[in-house]
Amino acid sequence: MKPSLPKGTRDYNPDQVYKRNFIFDTLRHVFEKFGYEPIETPVMENLSTLTGKYGDEGDQLLFKVLNNGDFLRNADKEDLKNRDYKKLAFSICKRGLRYDLTVPFARYVVMHRNEITFPFKRYQMQPVWRGDRPQKGRYQEFYQCDVDVVGSDALINEVELTQMYDEGFARLGIDCIIRLNNRKILTGMAEAASIPELITEMTTAIDKLDKIGMDGVKKEMKERGIPDSAIEKIETILGIEKITDLKPHLSSSKTGMEGLVEMETVFSYLERVDLKNQVLFDVKLARGLSYYTGIIFEVHSTKVDIGSIGGGGRYDNLTGVFGMEGVPGVGVSFGLDRMFDVMEELNLFPASTSKGSRLIFLTFDHLSFDYAFDALQSLRSEGIPCEIYPETAKFKKQIKYANDRNIPFAAIVGDNEVKAGKYMLKNMKSGDQRLVTLQELSDHIKEHHR
Amino acid sequence: MKPSLPKGTRDYNPDQVYKRNFIFDTLRHVFEKFGYEPIETPVMENLSTLTGKYGDEGDQLLFKVLNNGDFLRNADKEDLKNRDYKKLAFSICKRGLRYDLTVPFARYVVMHRNEITFPFKRYQMQPVWRGDRPQKGRYQEFYQCDVDVVGSDALINEVELTQMYDEGFARLGIDCIIRLNNRKILTGMAEAASIPELITEMTTAIDKLDKIGMDGVKKEMKERGIPDSAIEKIETILGIEKITDLKPHLSSSKTGMEGLVEMETVFSYLERVDLKNQVLFDVKLARGLSYYTGIIFEVHSTKVDIGSIGGGGRYDNLTGVFGMEGVPGVGVSFGLDRMFDVMEELNLFPASTSKGSRLIFLTFDHLSFDYAFDALQSLRSEGIPCEIYPETAKFKKQIKYANDRNIPFAAIVGDNEVKAGKYMLKNMKSGDQRLVTLQELSDHIKEHHR
Repeated sequence: MKPSLPKGTRDYNPDQVYKRNFIFDTLRHVFEKFGYEPIETPVMENLSTLTGKYGDEGDQLLFKVLNNGDFLRNADKEDLKNRDYKKLAFSICKRGLRYDLTVPFARYVVMHRNEITFPFKRYQMQPVWRGDRPQKGRYQEFYQCDVDVVGSDALINEVELTQMYDEGFARLGIDCIIRLNNRKILTGMAEAASIPELITEMTTAIDKLDKIGMDGVKKEMKERGIPDSAIEKIETILGIEKITDLKPHLSSSKTGMEGLVEMETVFSYLERVDLKNQVLFDVKLARGLSYYTGIIFEVHSTKVDIGSIGGGGRYDNLTGVFGMEGVPGVGVSFGLDRMFDVMEELNLFPASTSKGSRLIFLTFDHLSFDYAFDALQSLRSEGIPCEIYPETAKFKKQIKYANDRNIPFAAIVGDNEVKAGKYMLKNMKSGDQRLVTLQELSDHIKEHHR
Repeated sequence: MKPSLPKGTRDYNPDQVYKRNFIFDTLRHVFEKFGYEPIETPVMENLSTLTGKYGDEGDQLLFKVLNNGDFLRNADKEDLKNRDYKKLAFSICKRGLRYDLTVPFARYVVMHRNEITFPFKRYQMQPVWRGDRPQKGRYQEFYQCDVDVVGSDALINEVELTQMYDEGFARLGIDCIIRLNNRKILTGMAEAASIPELITEMTTAIDKLDKIGMDGVKKEMKERGIPDSAIEKIETILGIEKITDLKPHLSSSKTGMEGLVEMETVFSYLERVDLKNQVLFDVKLARGLSYYTGIIFEVHSTKVDIGSIGGGGRYDNLTGVFGMEGVPGVGVSFGLDRMFDVMEELNLFPASTSKGSRLIFLTFDHLSFDYAFDALQSLRSEGIPCEIYPETAKFKKQIKYANDRNIPFAAIVGDNEVKAGKYMLKNMKSGDQRLVTLQELSDHIKEHHR
């Protein structure tokens, strides 16, 4: 049989693992510098934890794990008879693969509430699974990276999440624009336009602004039943850039004014910190997710047009669905796959993200192999990652191996080198080579260490 | 609803993640120093890749993922009618969770054969899933760590894997004994005892030596149909410690003598390297896995009686089952869960594996919060991980938070500190506190940095 992978999944080769770890390690460093701590949750969750959290469509996209043993014994007889596969799945599967990191985080907070000291600042970088139709750049197994703080209303959290976005992207070399808005301001807009009951229609339309332009948004609002007078008012407000300039327009909405004051506070702190990227207030930002109740974040690369590479917001009630009330929070996600693509496209990864071999010994026979073996131990004991070609194969084959592995230096050992007590040091890139002592070999590699 | 986790799975809290990452990072460092490179494979594999590789019992313990959409459409009608759940599972599930790292590695090698330069030295640290009944210390989701080189017969690989065991465990502080034997020597024993066809019976019995003692092994061999004369011969051989002393006993077996020469070669190299732990030849070592064809490894902690914390061996044909012949290899596993337990029991983890906050600012009101906010930025810009309690909560609550989080220092800021332009630096462990400038604060934290 010829083996294959399930559609929408992929292997990571060494180069890809190194590069991904470079991203993970960079972000981890930033998160921990801000006092955020890592947790990890199991890949499998109880289906009862997952279902009903992502809408009907989400329930269908959950990967469900068949019960071990005689799964038919507890299968619902009616569902089986009616061939109602949607319902039957839940009586033959009690576990599923995690669909995002938010629900497992909420479950974690509830289950560990007595061990956790709030405010709880956590980050989590783990894969998730969704049964979407695979497309270019969209996988059924992919990594998410979430950073949240729960149990605190303070706006300093919004400030620090913005800082972490800024520093995280800056350290990776990804120039970006971080846009901020506030759900309360969107509420204020709907109230000021006298359509508070149509806020979802309004935000859904505004959310498409990038794609369909202002005319498209206005058309869509009209189709969604928003009256012309309101559309006019909303268009005016969407044209305003400054928080202070919005005040006269939202003064009739208590919630709207609250949102503006919150954004003023956040920006007053942000003005006092050293930011590498642009952070903008953008009243036109209207992320779809309806559970956001305060600030909304969205990040885009300034150089690659690939959609958002980050997003998030404040929510009121993370854990209510699991019976634990009063846990507000705010969090952001990093779009790891897109970040990887941006970094590849702009060549932002360091020349070598590998921490592997700096040098390979190439030998011709048992005698030279033995001679090189001792030198190998000596270099390794100095902490230099290096290796020896394990067999006395044809020289061409050995050189090809060193090249394919991207090992920067080779130490070639034949009869002459053994007799002279030296090593032929070859720079694999330039092809230059010279005869050196063990000490010189070691010094050279250390000088050219990453 | 009260949320729970599937049986046999677990969350990792920040302390556990830090500690596990300490193990992962330490091993990763050693592997890469020896020129081994990381790969990662998807959690889900095609069931066709997994089934038939782990025996009938293994097939039952595989976690199978229900097909998306109308899984009943392609369900086998006969199996469904007969309620043959074992067979039915394979027509309603085409994917499963990986059961170990060996089969995915073999699949990887075959699929990527044209990109890989052999010999291919890879390591992989990822979770696997097995539907075993959960017990203390045995989980349905657990991590494996495999290190293999394929496409090379050279015994230097055996030597370097032994060195990686030695250095990996030494760097973690785990004192251990690394035992080596060779399948060919076991074959030689069976041949010398004139029971070549009963080798599996013999090794299965010997494998239990630790548990049931020599008398038990002899009894079991007898029960398994091995004649007394052979048992006597085997007992004699099992009593021999030195490779050279075995030669007269195995001289009638070509394979046995080959095994002895291989072990002499391996030990001749090992004698030339600097080992921190004991590496022993042990003719009594008979790991059960029948696919080993050469060297066998097994590692035990010298201080905690917890079973093997590592094992492995040489195999002839990793990828034959996927139609690719001629890929021999040798590999070892690290028993991560048991290693974690040993390190906890012996208190081997560094005092702080966290890279998180070294200092927390505690404030009393808006004024002191603002004052501390600027100091916070200053320290972070120097690379010091630190944070500020996000609200102006009661002081007792803030101090409890700092204690619970194990943050070693606090900088307390009230009216007096603001007026003096200073900070009250408190050592959270000793309780000592003194008034310092920002520069002194920074210097102190840096001095006491990990």
